[in-house]
Amino acid sequence: MKKLINDADAVVAESLVGFEAAMGGLIRVDHENKIVYRLDSPRLGKVGLVSGGGSGHEPLHSGFVGLGMLDAACVGEIFTSPVPGQVAAATAAVDGGAGVLHIVKNYTGDIMNFEMAAELAADSGSRVESVVVDDDVSVQDSLYTAGRRGVGLTVLLEKLVGAAAEAGADLDAVLALARRITASGRSMGLALTSCTTPAVGKPTFELGEDEMEVGIGIHGEPGRERRPLASAAEVAPLLCEPILADLDYRGSEVIAFVNGMGGTPLIELFVMYAETARFLEAAGVRIVRNLVGNYITSLDMAGCSITLLKADDELIRLWDAPVVTPGLRWGA
Amino acid sequence: MKKLINDADAVVAESLVGFEAAMGGLIRVDHENKIVYRLDSPRLGKVGLVSGGGSGHEPLHSGFVGLGMLDAACVGEIFTSPVPGQVAAATAAVDGGAGVLHIVKNYTGDIMNFEMAAELAADSGSRVESVVVDDDVSVQDSLYTAGRRGVGLTVLLEKLVGAAAEAGADLDAVLALARRITASGRSMGLALTSCTTPAVGKPTFELGEDEMEVGIGIHGEPGRERRPLASAAEVAPLLCEPILADLDYRGSEVIAFVNGMGGTPLIELFVMYAETARFLEAAGVRIVRNLVGNYITSLDMAGCSITLLKADDELIRLWDAPVVTPGLRWGA
Repeated sequence: MKKLINDADAVVAESLVGFEAAMGGLIRVDHENKIVYRLDSPRLGKVGLVSGGGSGHEPLHSGFVGLGMLDAACVGEIFTSPVPGQVAAATAAVDGGAGVLHIVKNYTGDIMNFEMAAELAADSGSRVESVVVDDDVSVQDSLYTAGRRGVGLTVLLEKLVGAAAEAGADLDAVLALARRITASGRSMGLALTSCTTPAVGKPTFELGEDEMEVGIGIHGEPGRERRPLASAAEVAPLLCEPILADLDYRGSEVIAFVNGMGGTPLIELFVMYAETARFLEAAGVRIVRNLVGNYITSLDMAGCSITLLKADDELIRLWDAPVVTPGLRWGA
Repeated sequence: MKKLINDADAVVAESLVGFEAAMGGLIRVDHENKIVYRLDSPRLGKVGLVSGGGSGHEPLHSGFVGLGMLDAACVGEIFTSPVPGQVAAATAAVDGGAGVLHIVKNYTGDIMNFEMAAELAADSGSRVESVVVDDDVSVQDSLYTAGRRGVGLTVLLEKLVGAAAEAGADLDAVLALARRITASGRSMGLALTSCTTPAVGKPTFELGEDEMEVGIGIHGEPGRERRPLASAAEVAPLLCEPILADLDYRGSEVIAFVNGMGGTPLIELFVMYAETARFLEAAGVRIVRNLVGNYITSLDMAGCSITLLKADDELIRLWDAPVVTPGLRWGA
């Protein structure tokens, strides 16, 4: 295993020390509970947004804390859910009196722990609602999940819902928006290599030198199939066709997100974006906004995912609204 | 070789198609000459800033075109200098009457081609000055370079000089600033793995499973030495001590830049930043601004580099000034 770390058991805690030292102008860290807060949280009268999950997917979620996005991110160990007490503490801390939305990726551990946290927070007097992101069309009921896994759409949802909360939407409106987004967004990914977690120290799975895993999960969970390596022009339909088969995007305007899994250079992601745009244009899908880069990663995995979200004037306005976080930043 | 591309010979051209499709709100691309321009270039009365170099280091340089940074980036093939005619075309196109500064990393091919381009541009009536970035303390006179190589400082210089030009500094002032920055910035890097260029299709060099290359160049050129893998706490002094031995930073305020070489996850870069900050504090060096992330990369190489730049009030003000580019963005 080749990693720039000290101790596999301390990597998350030590990384948070560096994250706060570097990003202290935007966020603060509760190191005991491993929670990243925006500096000015809680904000009175604003709906609080709390997400979190296992580490190893950075910049998700800790990098998306700040103006126009999350109020707090609960940081789990690598590929491991945050615990209920941690999420409950974050929930209480960001509740400015307007209630709190939990944004949860659909993995069994996350669902369980966020549910328990919501109950704890409700007992303490916070109104808490939850949205479960389950956008991955590749498989049902996989290793860590009942139903579809939550992947790239999480990034778009945190941005859009964050903008709505920032603009003063109340908890019912924020929840309705979040549900509308989960209903109209879908993703699929592909791995060229495995990732290696610090604790295990060897690749999570084996993949031949001329193979790729289509439909991979963000923890290296199996996908739909293994295939021989293919060109970018072949990969774009391999990922887009299952998305379009699951939800009809033809004639729609979309936000298109080409995400790198961590180990794929930007130059390849832009080749993939060119192919994705070409495929979608031929399929009658019109890209009105896009995001290209490494935003929801799987440590050092090479590969990419594609997310499509139906866009309308409201979503475009929310997308364009200012966001100032360590990992996503424009306007303001 | 596992890459999301179509054709090794077309990867740069195809990536530029995707880059323009994705980033068209900020930049435009001259595909024939492989030049990325900021949308509103040329700007009358503003000093034009032109950089460029081989591809494979993204977001450098194409990702740093825009408000507060470069006016144009000349995009070479992978790890290959742009050609003189290309640089001359960019120079003429961004000259708004106040002259043009070439920002050149110290590699033999880049130096030669930017010099020829400067002569061509002078013949066409543009006033052109050049600054050569040579911040890498690890080796002298390596594979591609006479003297020290140009690495991470290039990112900081493009940001700072970009802010000065944006604020209306004239060519003499911009050049003096650029030279002050090259005189007071130093870098050193380290690789845990090689990179693989699309054209060659196999790792540029071999590195044992328990080895790292200290003092690596951004094309996989040899460094100072191979050593057994070490912890982040050991790596920080391995990189910082040669920097401090080359230029005395004790008692200084600095901008500290922890850069990923492309294949190293953010979680590790923040562990490295924590260790770097700890080392520098003990050495009497005070970090006043920082940058952490993958900004000058070597395709899929795992590893990092550290850059230190002496900061004063002027540089801090320029650092904090708005920048709106595909790869670096804050304020405005």
